[in-house]
Amino acid sequence: MPLPPDLETPCLILHRDRLERNVKAMADRFREIGVPLRPHLKTAKSIDVARICAEYGADRWTVSTLREAEYFAAHGLTDILYAVSIIPAKLERVSALNRKGADVAVCLDTLDTAQALARASIDGPPLRVFLEIDVDRHRTGLRPEEARLIEIAQTIHDAERLQLYGVMAHGGESYAARSLTELEAMAEQERSITVAAADAVREAGMPRPIVSVGSTPTARFGRSFDGVSEVRAGVYMFQDVFQSNLAIAPLDDIAVTVLASVVSHAPHLNRLILDAGGLALSKDRSCATQENDCGYGFLADEDGTAIANLTIEGVSQEHGYVTTRDGQEIDFTRFPVGSRLQILPNHACMTAAAYDAYLTVDGQGGNLRVWPRVNGWDTYRN
Amino acid sequence: MPLPPDLETPCLILHRDRLERNVKAMADRFREIGVPLRPHLKTAKSIDVARICAEYGADRWTVSTLREAEYFAAHGLTDILYAVSIIPAKLERVSALNRKGADVAVCLDTLDTAQALARASIDGPPLRVFLEIDVDRHRTGLRPEEARLIEIAQTIHDAERLQLYGVMAHGGESYAARSLTELEAMAEQERSITVAAADAVREAGMPRPIVSVGSTPTARFGRSFDGVSEVRAGVYMFQDVFQSNLAIAPLDDIAVTVLASVVSHAPHLNRLILDAGGLALSKDRSCATQENDCGYGFLADEDGTAIANLTIEGVSQEHGYVTTRDGQEIDFTRFPVGSRLQILPNHACMTAAAYDAYLTVDGQGGNLRVWPRVNGWDTYRN
Repeated sequence: MPLPPDLETPCLILHRDRLERNVKAMADRFREIGVPLRPHLKTAKSIDVARICAEYGADRWTVSTLREAEYFAAHGLTDILYAVSIIPAKLERVSALNRKGADVAVCLDTLDTAQALARASIDGPPLRVFLEIDVDRHRTGLRPEEARLIEIAQTIHDAERLQLYGVMAHGGESYAARSLTELEAMAEQERSITVAAADAVREAGMPRPIVSVGSTPTARFGRSFDGVSEVRAGVYMFQDVFQSNLAIAPLDDIAVTVLASVVSHAPHLNRLILDAGGLALSKDRSCATQENDCGYGFLADEDGTAIANLTIEGVSQEHGYVTTRDGQEIDFTRFPVGSRLQILPNHACMTAAAYDAYLTVDGQGGNLRVWPRVNGWDTYRN
Repeated sequence: MPLPPDLETPCLILHRDRLERNVKAMADRFREIGVPLRPHLKTAKSIDVARICAEYGADRWTVSTLREAEYFAAHGLTDILYAVSIIPAKLERVSALNRKGADVAVCLDTLDTAQALARASIDGPPLRVFLEIDVDRHRTGLRPEEARLIEIAQTIHDAERLQLYGVMAHGGESYAARSLTELEAMAEQERSITVAAADAVREAGMPRPIVSVGSTPTARFGRSFDGVSEVRAGVYMFQDVFQSNLAIAPLDDIAVTVLASVVSHAPHLNRLILDAGGLALSKDRSCATQENDCGYGFLADEDGTAIANLTIEGVSQEHGYVTTRDGQEIDFTRFPVGSRLQILPNHACMTAAAYDAYLTVDGQGGNLRVWPRVNGWDTYRN
């Protein structure tokens, strides 16, 4: 699948056929299961990608920054969960969106924040609040057996301008799983603990909140979604080497790659030098703990065919250092200066964040379109 | 030094007083030594920062991307070294700048590229070329004893539209130094090998090229600059925890910090949760090899006072996980939800790249100004 010859490198290629295949597969799975997806847009950060999810039925959304919320709302999306603990200082940005009908929901897990929100003056419809539940000691959240859970739920339930809408969990420890059995167990842990939290709220006399769970591994490998109201996942749209190493997806499903050029040969170091370094690839080394550790990204040739014997052993800010995995001498004639390689990212969310936009191509590598991304957090502009 | 209360977090704070102090100190040092600086703008990526360097005498520049070259040239800077190996596909962007008078120089270290440039049609003044020299097996470059060095030099020297202008080296292994003695030895190695390369070119009958060396550690600790024509360094403007751990600068010199908010408490994990995670801080863990490993950044309170007993033990995309270094229980009352912390970056170049702009403040934390940054590589826009 040849890419256009005149692209500036490094650049971020998005393969639209793979993206659509990934989106469709997850949508099909959850249509069959009968639970709606709430796609997480933190990986793609692109309205064009969100529209493909919508074509496959998505009508509710997850974001990781308020800037994403503002961007997607400006493009017409509604029912958006901002899935990082809200603090009072950020409430006005949420309220401003909700006054315009974006229907942004927030999450929290502390009594202080619940009390501050209960006191806040919130106009428009009541603000929907999710309680974050800790299912695996990975991030933050409340344990279902904690007295705090009910106290916080009650504070929200009693507040006139708040609606205790859901409990949510992110089974992030699934990323550390080593086998299908472990993945299934983590999905079940995520489900059962979050459902238990919703049940605990109901047993305390409040309406049962909806149950929102998710991560790409648990979404993909969960066997039961009993009691679950919706599933959040994001990286499945693109996949990456880390997910591939978890056996979630073959390398051929990875929809986003970095196109880089060979800019130098260092025969005395048995190295090819690429123009994609720590900024273009990210310094994510999550694969270092996995069996198929490929350094700073998995190398493929310009047409996308994996080159299993090469590895990116190191990066500087704008240089990537490629050598062989087994110490064999590189065949430099195969990779002349100016030739190009595609790099499958270790962690798609981190790598994509270095770019303002995707260069998207169809399955034949043609029909180039630029799809912008919404990076960063700020609202200020000069 | 209190910061304004109404900043969106996470955001990138640039302390102008520290920046200016760092710029002045390096400028003073090299004015005394009698060798000009060619500041590397890859860390700051900001014309406002470059202007401060110019106020302290800088009149030549280094960049790491052609986008930087285009941005700084558009703001009037000239004599710009693009210090990543050029390839023929990138020549037209350089030529376009040089036709407008930017006087961009390039570097290379392969015969293939030298021959391609010699054949290329280059209008405007001759293109200045630096040969990259490998002084420490860190990156790429030619060894002075290699026959290739003279062959490539001769190819450039003989080409009508090229000028064999300089030899350059980056003593990147200085970042791995563990003592002042080692730093001094690495600076001397960088100097002596690069000078030897220039001498080898002259002994082969060509005019002696200028000698350009540099990295912040070798610039700071080199004892002799005999035979050196110019020194490149970039991170010294901001400094960071990695440099501080090399004893190059005290933590108080670090000019760029991330301001983050405490968004949650997880007492059962003995954790504060920040709204600055892998994207806001970068996943650079270069300090992991140093004695003062502070996780994903060194924590300070809102006013900038170091909090030595806390560490950022982990990050997710938008979450930072803070715990104590010694296992002691966190005093959560000291860090209420909504309170703010400053995080000194492990590696300023990587952290700053996540932000479109700096919020710059004066020494009293006031006089807020937004200074944009030029991130990325591309030329395409929708």
